[in-house]
Formats: sequence, C-alpha cells, structure tokens
Amino acid sequence: MITWKNLDTLTAYGKLAALKDRVDLPEVMSDESGAARVAKYSVPIAEGLVYNYAAKAVDDEILAVLGELAAETQLAEKYAALYNGEIINTGEKRLVLHQLLRGQLGDAVMADGVDKRAFFVNEQKKAADFAGKVHSGEITNAAGEKFTTVVQIGIGGSDLGPRAVYLALENWARHNDALKMNARFISNVDPDDATSVLESVDVSRSLFVLVSKSGTTLETLTNETFVKDALKKAGLDPAKHMVAVTSETSPLAKSSDYLAAFFMDDYIGGRYSCSSCVGGVILSLAFGPEVFARFLDGAHAADVAAKEADPLKNAAMLDALIGVYERNVLGYPMTAVLPYSQALCRFPAHLQQLDMESNGKSVNRFGEPVHYATGSVIFGEPGTNGQHSFYQLLHQGTDIVPLQFIGYRRNQMGNDVVIQGTTSQQKLCANVAAQIMAFACGKQDENPNKCFAGGRPSSIIIGEQVTPESIGALLAHFENKVMFQGFCWNLNSFDQEGVQLGKVLAKRVLAHETDGALRAYSDLLAI
Amino acid sequence: MITWKNLDTLTAYGKLAALKDRVDLPEVMSDESGAARVAKYSVPIAEGLVYNYAAKAVDDEILAVLGELAAETQLAEKYAALYNGEIINTGEKRLVLHQLLRGQLGDAVMADGVDKRAFFVNEQKKAADFAGKVHSGEITNAAGEKFTTVVQIGIGGSDLGPRAVYLALENWARHNDALKMNARFISNVDPDDATSVLESVDVSRSLFVLVSKSGTTLETLTNETFVKDALKKAGLDPAKHMVAVTSETSPLAKSSDYLAAFFMDDYIGGRYSCSSCVGGVILSLAFGPEVFARFLDGAHAADVAAKEADPLKNAAMLDALIGVYERNVLGYPMTAVLPYSQALCRFPAHLQQLDMESNGKSVNRFGEPVHYATGSVIFGEPGTNGQHSFYQLLHQGTDIVPLQFIGYRRNQMGNDVVIQGTTSQQKLCANVAAQIMAFACGKQDENPNKCFAGGRPSSIIIGEQVTPESIGALLAHFENKVMFQGFCWNLNSFDQEGVQLGKVLAKRVLAHETDGALRAYSDLLAI
Repeated sequence: MITWKNLDTLTAYGKLAALKDRVDLPEVMSDESGAARVAKYSVPIAEGLVYNYAAKAVDDEILAVLGELAAETQLAEKYAALYNGEIINTGEKRLVLHQLLRGQLGDAVMADGVDKRAFFVNEQKKAADFAGKVHSGEITNAAGEKFTTVVQIGIGGSDLGPRAVYLALENWARHNDALKMNARFISNVDPDDATSVLESVDVSRSLFVLVSKSGTTLETLTNETFVKDALKKAGLDPAKHMVAVTSETSPLAKSSDYLAAFFMDDYIGGRYSCSSCVGGVILSLAFGPEVFARFLDGAHAADVAAKEADPLKNAAMLDALIGVYERNVLGYPMTAVLPYSQALCRFPAHLQQLDMESNGKSVNRFGEPVHYATGSVIFGEPGTNGQHSFYQLLHQGTDIVPLQFIGYRRNQMGNDVVIQGTTSQQKLCANVAAQIMAFACGKQDENPNKCFAGGRPSSIIIGEQVTPESIGALLAHFENKVMFQGFCWNLNSFDQEGVQLGKVLAKRVLAHETDGALRAYSDLLAI
Repeated sequence: MITWKNLDTLTAYGKLAALKDRVDLPEVMSDESGAARVAKYSVPIAEGLVYNYAAKAVDDEILAVLGELAAETQLAEKYAALYNGEIINTGEKRLVLHQLLRGQLGDAVMADGVDKRAFFVNEQKKAADFAGKVHSGEITNAAGEKFTTVVQIGIGGSDLGPRAVYLALENWARHNDALKMNARFISNVDPDDATSVLESVDVSRSLFVLVSKSGTTLETLTNETFVKDALKKAGLDPAKHMVAVTSETSPLAKSSDYLAAFFMDDYIGGRYSCSSCVGGVILSLAFGPEVFARFLDGAHAADVAAKEADPLKNAAMLDALIGVYERNVLGYPMTAVLPYSQALCRFPAHLQQLDMESNGKSVNRFGEPVHYATGSVIFGEPGTNGQHSFYQLLHQGTDIVPLQFIGYRRNQMGNDVVIQGTTSQQKLCANVAAQIMAFACGKQDENPNKCFAGGRPSSIIIGEQVTPESIGALLAHFENKVMFQGFCWNLNSFDQEGVQLGKVLAKRVLAHETDGALRAYSDLLAI
C-alpha cells in the first residue's frame, strides 16, 4: 500500500536533519582514508558507468538514515507503481511511461485500449523503417537525390534532449562509420534562429521533423511556416520534405502536409521524450536505427538497475537521496553539472530542463504548499573549459555549490597528441581527478588569497567512453534520480503548470489586450 | 582620498539592511502604478540600450540609500582611480586597463615606460592592417589562395568573450555584407574538441589564432600541437597559417612559428580581454576592422556613461547596487541571464565567467575574510527556449532567483513570417514582456498547482538591435557592473587565485606523484 507523505512528516527525515555538518571532508578525504572512501563509496549504474560519491559529505550513519528514508518514502514501490502503469502524474491524471519506451520493467500496461509497450515498439519500428528507406534512397527528394540533412523543429523537450544526445554521438558516429545524415535544430521563436539554420543547409536535400505533441506549440508552428516558405521559395513541395512527431489526437496526426507521422502520447512528458519518436526519428535518421536501439538498451539497463530497493546498490536512488540531504539538511540551493567531455557540451542544458522543470515546485502532489526546499538550480559547462571560467567562485566563493562531475577514460575520435609525456585525454582525466580533491580538501596557505577552504562536495560518474549505450544509461540515470527526488519531496514531477501564465500574458500582448505595466513594456519593445 | 572598506562597515549598508521586504512587487507593478514605474525606473546605458528596473523590488527610499552607499563606497572615485592608472589589482600589483582599450577616459596612463593607450591603439592598428592584408589577398596560403576561415585556439577569457561576440554578430554580418571569414573555436583539452573542429574546416584555407597571455596555458599549447600536426599532415607550413596573441614577454612573442604576433599585457585580465587583440584579431578577420572598431566605440560609450556619480543616472552602477541589495539584504545567491535573442546564445556563458571569476571570492582586497556574501552564481539560456525548460522553477520553485532579461525591438536578419497576425519578432518581444509581469505579479488561482506567487524580481535591458555598437555597450555594461560590485564588496575583482590549486594537483597526477584518494581517482580514470 503506497502512501504519499511530505518529506517533513517522515521519521527518517527528522533523524537526517539531526545529522548536519558531521563529515569533515578535508579530513576524511585525506590520505588513505580518502582512498578507502573512493573504493567503498561507489555504485554501478549500467553500461560501465559508475557513480562514485566518496567526495560527498556523507558517512555510513548518514547513508543508513538515507536507507531508512528510502524505505519510509517507499521509493522502490513508487517506481514500481509508475512502471506498472498507475496514474503517477496525478494533476493531469496521466500515466508516466517513458521507461516503457525502453523496455518492459513490470506488468503489461494497458491504456487507451492498447498495450502501450506494443504501441511504443510499433512507433519505433515505423521510425526505423522510415530511416531505412531514407538511407537506402527509397525515399528521396523530387529530383531523386538522397536526403543528407535532418532538421528538427521543436522547443523545450523536443529540442534539448535530442540535441544533447545528437551532439554527444556526432563525433562518435563520424569515427564509427555511423553518421548517416547531419542533424540541425530550429527551436527559438526568434526569427533569426530559423533563418540562420535554413541558410546553412541545402533545403533540397533536407528532411524536416516537426515535433509538437499537441500540435499547437506556437514557436514550433511558427518555425514550420519558416521552413515551408523556404521550401516553396526553392520550388519544392513541403509535404515531401517534412514528417511530424505528435500525438495521435493532434491536428498534425493525419494531415497530408507530411510524408509520415510518428506518435507519442500523453504519458510521455516533453522532457522525458528523447526515448520516444521525439528523439527516435532524428537520431535514427542521423545515426541509423541500430544506434538508436543501442541508446534505448543503455537507458533500459539503467532503468532496471534503478529497481533495486537498497539505495547503496541503486545509483539513481542514492544520488537522489544525497541530493535531498544536501538540499534540505545542508541547505544548498544549486548544483553544477560538469562533464569532462566536449561531446556532452549540451547535456547540462538538458539536465537543467529535466531537473528544474520536474521538481521546481512549491506544492505537493495534492496541491498543498510544502514547507521545505524542493528542486535546485542546475547549471554547468564542460571541463576543462569551466575551470578557466566560473570555477573561481566554486572554489573560493562564499557559497557552497555541490558538484556533479562526469568523466570518461577514452575519448571518441581516437586522435590524440602527446605533450610533456601525456596525451590530451590523460590531461583531461587528470584535471577532473585533481578538481575533486581540490574541492574536497582545499589547501592552506600563508597568503589568505591563495587559501582554499575545501569542504565542497562532489560526486563523479565515470564511464569508459561516450557511446550510444552509455549516453542512454546516463540520460536514464538522471531521469530516475529526478523521479526519486520528486517522490522524496512528494511532488508531481510530471506536470509543468509554471509555464502557463507567461503564455497567457504573451497572447494578451499580441492581441493588444493589455494595460498598466504590461502595456508599458510592450510599448518599449515596440510590439 | 580613497579608502577601501568592507561593505558591513558602511553606515549606508546598515540603513539598507533595515529596508528588507518593503516592496510588494505584485502590488506596485499592478495597474497604473506599474506603468508609472516602467516609465520612471529607467536609465540609458549607451548605443540605444536602456536599463529598466521597474520590476526590481526597490522603491525611492531604497534607491536613495543605494545612492548613499555609492557615495560612501566612493564608486565613481574608485572607477576614476582605475582608469587613471592606479594599481587596483592589488594582489598582483597591476593596473586594470581594459577600458583604455576602448578609449581614454581620464589621464594618460604611463606604464612599462610607454603610454598605454598608444600601445593598445598600435596593436589594434597592427591587427587591422593584418586583417586588411588577409582580406585583400596580400597574405594568402602557399598556393596563393585567400584564407576563408579563422580558428581561435584559446580557453577561458580567450574563448568565451570572443566566441559570444562572434556569434552575436555572425548573422548580422551575413546580412550586412560584413562576413569576411567564418570563425571557429578550439578550447577544451578534450582531444575531440580540436579533432572535430579541424575535420570541419579546410585547413589549407584556415588561419589559426593562438591566444595565451603567458604563452604557457596547457590546454592552448596542447591544442596548438593538434593544429600544427593537422597542417603538417596536409603538407602545409604551420608558420604560414598561425598568428599569436600574447604578451610581449611571453615565449610566443618573438617566435618564428607565427606569421605575426599581437600583444596584450598584464593589465588586461583574460575575462576582460575581448576588447584587446584577444577579441580584436579574430573579430577583425571575421568581420573587418571597421566592425571591430564599432564594437570598441560601443563599449567606450558605455564606459563613459559609467563615470556618472549618481547611480540613478548610471546604469552599470545602479545595476551593481541593486544586485548588492538582492544578494546581501534579500539573500538571493544566484541570477539568471535571459537574452531574448538567439544571437546572444553564448553571452550568458561569457557573463558567467566575467561575474563569477571576478567576484566569487571570500577575502577582501587586503586578504581578510569577509563576513557577507559576494558574487552570485550566474546562468542562463536564450528566451523563448528557456521558457520551455527551466522557467518552471523560476516561476514556482521554492527559491527566488533574480532575473536579468535582455530584449531587442528588431531581429538581425530581416526575414520574418506573420502567423496569427503577428511576426515572430513580435512574439519574441511579447514573451519577454509577459514573463516580466508573470514573475513580478504572479496570479492567484483556485487550483493551487496553477498559482503563481509572483514577487520574483527582474530587470530588462532593451535595445534596438544586436549591432557591433550595441554588443560592445552590453559587454562593457556588465564589465562595469561587476567592477562596481567588486568595489562594494571590497574585493579584488581582477585576480583569480581560485583556479590555481586544481592546476597544481593535475600536474601531480600526470607526474604520478600522488597517493590516497587522488591516486584512487586517477586509477579509476585509467590515467
């Protein structure tokens, strides 16, 4: 029997709140005790990824209470309820089925009169077949030429996840003979975004993927018009250059404006949709359906690992619980995501949406205000670039910012140089190891300007290489982490009511139905 | 007579601290009182940019005390001391002269036996002449072909500012017949970064700009080797394809490995160096020297405006003071930068370095610990993209995040479509106006999940268009804001000791001179 309780009503939370400031990171991470922590505080995720939390400000006693918190919050049971098809998105009365896109974790899930796993698999097959025909030349432009470029038109979850994963695998694909088509993305309603992308591609050889679940997203429909105009100006038939990714009930679903339509449903939130056709169509076109299938397999492996009830054996759950400890007991309001891989340059932007849109909420799943902090601000840039930028504040600023490092033993492109006896990849890895220790232990110095207080907690996810499987596992790890945190905070992590008010007011501005300050701002902006 | 005092010792700060939570934003921004604030709370920056702070939680009384704080902190006098050549970077015993790159604000500044303004102008002229010869075909590759691409090799300030400005003007230039060469950037020590860029350009037609003030930045020298290898593999002479931007005393300065060398000096911090040859060479090559000169003119105009002693007439000073009020009285630890222009897609990353590296410090300029919060975390993405991502938390999360909007009346590329009676540019502007009001006033609703508390402060910088002049003014505005905030907090905003420890430890890892946890992490990463 599942019960939904606020964090501050739980016995384990009371115990946890008493365990503040008990770990002296500079001390425990020094010398051989630090080495022992690195060996011990480690949990596999999947696909070779390991979550290491040695440099987090936790100890066995805190971890034991986090285990109690996991049990009392029924994290594993709630995850099971979710993947078995209960209505977890209570506000919108919807199932939450993004894990089902990757594999069956539990019971068959029937909804809308169909087996949803079969529905998702069928859509994936449709996307794979379509991609195959494009690659083979069965589907071409009017001149019989193969399409060389795929352009996604979408915003938010229809953009950030697929873009992050495309960029994560682009160079890998190039060096593994898997880059079938180049991909580009149009998202912003700023007209220069569409114009700039359209000027940079050969539209006659481009396929456009229009992504909007509702078929009513203003930015996306506006950008569709840009694309259609460009195609028409080039003497081309837009209907031969566009496909739609949408829900079966949307106006786009049966339109003859598209070569094909691929479906998701209301049980796939935008920020969780990269595993659906939202990511599947463009990634299958760019890299081939086999690569997208490998991505899904990696995500599924992480989903399976997240079923474990003991957080010490469940990286996503433990990551979530340590985050709750940092947020609610230690009081840290932000987290930096720092991947030491240029391929992950836009992965922090995806995580920013995933986390902040899911758990940036002030009412619980029953609509009651909560009296504790929830989702934190997420930001980040790749290392080593960030080291030469904002790390100054992370090391010596007046606030402590928890850090999420990500590092890989091998680069993707196989090209490297030896300078001063080491490769660039070794330098990259040496830097991430060095940063963890610099943040944890700091350094005393006679010159106070050169002092580092240390005590700045971090964890690191270490993998072998950014591959289709490992990026799938990484993406799913964070989806599951965010889900578990939402359970801890008793939130509905699957709606986003906070985006609505701005839309309503923007419509009023455009209809000139405003007064007061809104009218004054509109005048300043010459609308 | 200038005196340097900690913020918490100032009389005005004591008064300010008593003025907490006195402005009810939903109330004052409603109806005609809101319109009156929008009209009144506005200060010009330069080049058509205006700083509007109507939606900040301030009123006339707070502003009056901020004026007292400005006077007591001697903000205008300290700025004058800086541009007149006093040693403001006391830790490193250096002048701070980035404003002098753009124009003479006060006395002639003599250092190293030369007039520094003349020195900077001469370097700009060298860069302009060089760019002219490249554009005219006087300087070509060995085959006598014109160079078509310029690739910057640099990290941190040698990357973020020039990259942000290049991206800000790329589409403007394309539509104003000013795009002379395409620009690319190599920054990360991740070997895939250099490999990927090098594979995407025709190296035989590419000029490489190696940027390192000291000539010893590990990432940059490593990436130089990548580039040289690629040039040699293509049968080309690296010395005919590379220029150096460095200090006169660096090992790169007189090397025969470069076609030319352009100089900055120790008085230009990396994050303030976009106006020097660090930005000047690549931007002059990409857009022509006239465009770079216009950029400098715009920055200079903002520098001149920042001389005003009354913060109500000085946007940079007022922006800084309101930030101090938010940080130290209201207790907000982060700020989101939200440009409604795709051209500014990397401008937040530049500001992140500028602000966090300058003021993310815990000791004052005398090396004494301060007992108040200093620099905040800066993050952001362009609107409207962010609206479909992390704005959920900004609207309904448990923490308040102050917001810095940026908006322009006109787009850059002149192409637009009308959908539902309005252009995309109008939709873009309507959204930013709507967001300001949604954040400020919120909305009550019977469904608590659809409630918006409001009271979330923002300011907006409004301009006509992203042009060379206006992006220069925008960049300088924030440099000056950060400088004034550093004065308020009594910090040295011009050093960055916090980046050193990580470098030292990384070297130890690479030399295998580690034990304990650092050794354990190194093993996990297979270094």
